[in-house]
Amino acid sequence: MRYSLMFIPTVKEIPSDAETASHQLLIRAGFMRKVASGTYTYLPLGWRSLLKIIAIVREEMNKAGAQEILVPSMQPKELWDRTGRSVDYGPTMFCLEDRHGRMNVLGPTAEEVFTTLVAGEIKSYKQLPINLYQISPKFRDEFRPRFGPIRSREFIMKDAYSFDANPAGIDKSYQAMYDAYCRIFRRCGLEYVIVEAEVGEMGGSGSHQFTVPCESGEDTIVYTEDGSYAANLERANVDPLPKNKTATEIPSPEEVHTPNIGSIEAVCEFLKTKPQDMIKTLIYSASKRTIIALVRGDHDVNPEKLTQILGGEHIELADEPTIEKVSGAKVGFAGPMGLAKKVDKIIIDYAVAAMAVGVTGANKTDYHIKNIVPGRDFPLEGDNIIVADIRYAQQGDTYNGKKLLFKKGIEVGQVFKLGTKYSVKLGAKFLDEQDDEKPCLMGCYGIGVNRILASAIELGNDDNGISWPISIAPFEVLVTSVNQDDEKVARTAEDIYQQLLDSGIDVLLDDRVLRGGVKFKDADLIGIPVRITVGKKSVAEGNVEIKLRCESQSRKVSIEKATDEVKKLIVSLKEQIKA
Amino acid sequence: MRYSLMFIPTVKEIPSDAETASHQLLIRAGFMRKVASGTYTYLPLGWRSLLKIIAIVREEMNKAGAQEILVPSMQPKELWDRTGRSVDYGPTMFCLEDRHGRMNVLGPTAEEVFTTLVAGEIKSYKQLPINLYQISPKFRDEFRPRFGPIRSREFIMKDAYSFDANPAGIDKSYQAMYDAYCRIFRRCGLEYVIVEAEVGEMGGSGSHQFTVPCESGEDTIVYTEDGSYAANLERANVDPLPKNKTATEIPSPEEVHTPNIGSIEAVCEFLKTKPQDMIKTLIYSASKRTIIALVRGDHDVNPEKLTQILGGEHIELADEPTIEKVSGAKVGFAGPMGLAKKVDKIIIDYAVAAMAVGVTGANKTDYHIKNIVPGRDFPLEGDNIIVADIRYAQQGDTYNGKKLLFKKGIEVGQVFKLGTKYSVKLGAKFLDEQDDEKPCLMGCYGIGVNRILASAIELGNDDNGISWPISIAPFEVLVTSVNQDDEKVARTAEDIYQQLLDSGIDVLLDDRVLRGGVKFKDADLIGIPVRITVGKKSVAEGNVEIKLRCESQSRKVSIEKATDEVKKLIVSLKEQIKA
Repeated sequence: MRYSLMFIPTVKEIPSDAETASHQLLIRAGFMRKVASGTYTYLPLGWRSLLKIIAIVREEMNKAGAQEILVPSMQPKELWDRTGRSVDYGPTMFCLEDRHGRMNVLGPTAEEVFTTLVAGEIKSYKQLPINLYQISPKFRDEFRPRFGPIRSREFIMKDAYSFDANPAGIDKSYQAMYDAYCRIFRRCGLEYVIVEAEVGEMGGSGSHQFTVPCESGEDTIVYTEDGSYAANLERANVDPLPKNKTATEIPSPEEVHTPNIGSIEAVCEFLKTKPQDMIKTLIYSASKRTIIALVRGDHDVNPEKLTQILGGEHIELADEPTIEKVSGAKVGFAGPMGLAKKVDKIIIDYAVAAMAVGVTGANKTDYHIKNIVPGRDFPLEGDNIIVADIRYAQQGDTYNGKKLLFKKGIEVGQVFKLGTKYSVKLGAKFLDEQDDEKPCLMGCYGIGVNRILASAIELGNDDNGISWPISIAPFEVLVTSVNQDDEKVARTAEDIYQQLLDSGIDVLLDDRVLRGGVKFKDADLIGIPVRITVGKKSVAEGNVEIKLRCESQSRKVSIEKATDEVKKLIVSLKEQIKA
Repeated sequence: MRYSLMFIPTVKEIPSDAETASHQLLIRAGFMRKVASGTYTYLPLGWRSLLKIIAIVREEMNKAGAQEILVPSMQPKELWDRTGRSVDYGPTMFCLEDRHGRMNVLGPTAEEVFTTLVAGEIKSYKQLPINLYQISPKFRDEFRPRFGPIRSREFIMKDAYSFDANPAGIDKSYQAMYDAYCRIFRRCGLEYVIVEAEVGEMGGSGSHQFTVPCESGEDTIVYTEDGSYAANLERANVDPLPKNKTATEIPSPEEVHTPNIGSIEAVCEFLKTKPQDMIKTLIYSASKRTIIALVRGDHDVNPEKLTQILGGEHIELADEPTIEKVSGAKVGFAGPMGLAKKVDKIIIDYAVAAMAVGVTGANKTDYHIKNIVPGRDFPLEGDNIIVADIRYAQQGDTYNGKKLLFKKGIEVGQVFKLGTKYSVKLGAKFLDEQDDEKPCLMGCYGIGVNRILASAIELGNDDNGISWPISIAPFEVLVTSVNQDDEKVARTAEDIYQQLLDSGIDVLLDDRVLRGGVKFKDADLIGIPVRITVGKKSVAEGNVEIKLRCESQSRKVSIEKATDEVKKLIVSLKEQIKA
């Protein structure tokens, strides 16, 4: 391609609403433009890179035995009602009514449609295993879209769904996808880590997340320094804290008047106490049940862990009337005392159970209560009481006795063992060798295609612009004709360009009649891995310059040898990211 | 690929809701499954064919100098309000509100987003011409989706938009797309015709439609036998009919009581007259204006022609209150007498102006009026009166004195010269050589990717199934191992399969342990162009059989020569559909 004919609208200004390097550079280098909050147009360069990523994903998925199909983005909401996910997704799922009054959703993912498809076609264990996937737009009405392609409302996802007849089968299918993901991210030039992840409302028995560590990531990875443990924040386990003991006996509970003082900070200030000495009482609704969760004042409830303890049930914080009904007080004044009989379940975090004494709400508007001893003033045991790990790990926590460390990252893929949640609800059953009807064992596997693009930039950029991995760069080579108005320079650049094209190399010729400085700035900004600079002076000497985007030094090569030299460089760059 | 590992759910039954051969065969041959009314999942074979079509479209678009991008499917409705198309599309456009209360549409096409993009980036004539395209899902809430992929609610469209600085430029851009379309359809193996088409509400100055003639098509092509004229029905011109004369003088108009008799048929029966002797009076609303259209009782108003006469304005039939207000009578009794002063415009079809005398509504509920002479009883001339061709051509009509013929077809592509309609409304302007600001001249160009799939089947099928063109067949070659349980047969089939794979041929090996008859039935149904049959008897003789799907005879070839023979056949099949 010739730069003069390509639509590459680079800009100098950093867009005001772009916080991350990848978001800024995708706009500045002319790869992407915003259409509305969280939706983007991918321009020729951006789309070329995305097509390369898609080709890698497709190739590795096919190699792993998965079969590509395409399901509609617009799906009957009725399918999502049957699995309960129309409720679970809440306002994040786009819903729309058609002209005949039927409700549809824009798929944020596609378990329902794939499982229904398989339910209609698969009858026997002989037809299993099967792994079907698609690469298609997905839609999520994010409350706060941000970071460009990282959290957008419309994006391209590769989603695969495997169906197996037995546990050994699902293990094999899962491993095949896990391995394919390693190859895909490697071939896209990404440095990534694999961490244990929570299955959450997806249900199922296991999950791994593929995360690219970088400062601007939204996800948090929790790990131990020796590498023996790594999980995402939603999943990360923590060791229970040691039981706190006090030398003296704790006096009886004592109510204190805390008018209009409901927040942890306000109570601490008012009562001269610390958050870690307070007990937070959170009231949740799950289906028609009411659940209480207790965590220390300086801890946060991890809803994923809570959901897991409840067997994958969808939970949400109770509304004000429910809170007032359960606690008998306005919001901000709930406490655990006497609630065991009034709710369906109380789940107490290990750290609360380990407290010697604490302050909590008095279940009476404008009152808190001091000298609360867990086990004395509210029970730690009982039919509907569970003591468990339900909080997020935080600085200072350990797991298996080792200090937990925290790192930011971008989630680019996740694999799940789903089990039978969807196959049971949607009737994906088969007859086994004994002619018994059984639900398929499912796995699901997602890759955020646009996030690969963003992650590659987060890993490869400097003050001047992007530095692409060769495999997903919009072009492999850029031939910069520094003096396009000089006939000899233009002809030399053109010759090299044609030779590279003839060798099957993906090459861009900067044939614009512009100052060299402008061209070099654009070259650094768009980040093509190999640059051949053809200038008046060096051509007069019979040379051109070759420079890698990721290195600062260029070197002279004779015009005759330039093409061969570049071909070698490309082989070597590709070798570095071979799967 | 191995058939035993592929998901190819063929079925014997003809699906009850599938009316056309392509719809039936896509289901029966396991290429596609219905998800909901007008939405389909493309299974591995169907998706393979679609990917091949997409690759051909992409290659030819790139060759023609167009640049691929991707715009979001979900687009701010505000853009569509600015061009007025949110009104024009009416309920066919899917609209949805997001969680922040903003209205969005699911793009049925993308003029608005492309033009807005260009408006933001193009400043000077030096940046023109530019032609941008995408291949992406489109959404239309069809009132009655049917014929499978031909009229569905979600489909893949290639849509391109060209922007030029001057008329010579747009002519060139248009011609480049026209030529690319010829190559694309040819390479997809389609027989097609190119007809003049109406621009309708798209606005602009010219359009051609690429149509695949076939019985099950929804579109009608109108043409003369000598090939000098071809247009689609919306566009087709007709010669004005000669003025009818009567020997005797027509008596004065006479009201007749026609209680509850409003339809043409009922009036004809009641008054013993014929539809061609009646005048239909149709009342339309356009913006805030009221328009009357008069056509003969046996003719139908062509809304596209009417829209053109009104300069591209969106029109729709008036509602009941408007009709009653304008005519002073209930629906079914309007007539042209005295209406010229009450409406903004009267458009009279040539055939009405040519009538000697007619019957029409009396503008009085339950009354018609006889002996109406156009020009005597209502004016044929006046400031707001136009006599023009506003009806559909029909059997018996001529154009340029030649008889018009009619044929059904599937529209697979259309190209439009749009002019400045969108660039003016959305501010896509540039500075020309004289530094004057001018709107871009636009063209737009669409291809229905899924319709290519359906059209190919309509053209290539028999009682046994599909017969694909080699270029878009899911596989080029099928190796059928008739006796997979015979070791020698299985090994021979496997060897040939591997040799073909190594030669870069797209081959499917039917390695299922099933009766030969079942395999042959499936082979004919899925329609792979070249079949190699490996059976016990012929292998014992050192032979295999080669058969083209489009021919009934097979021939024996020695096992050694099979691969070379197949390669030659493929070359020859490809040669037949070379662009």
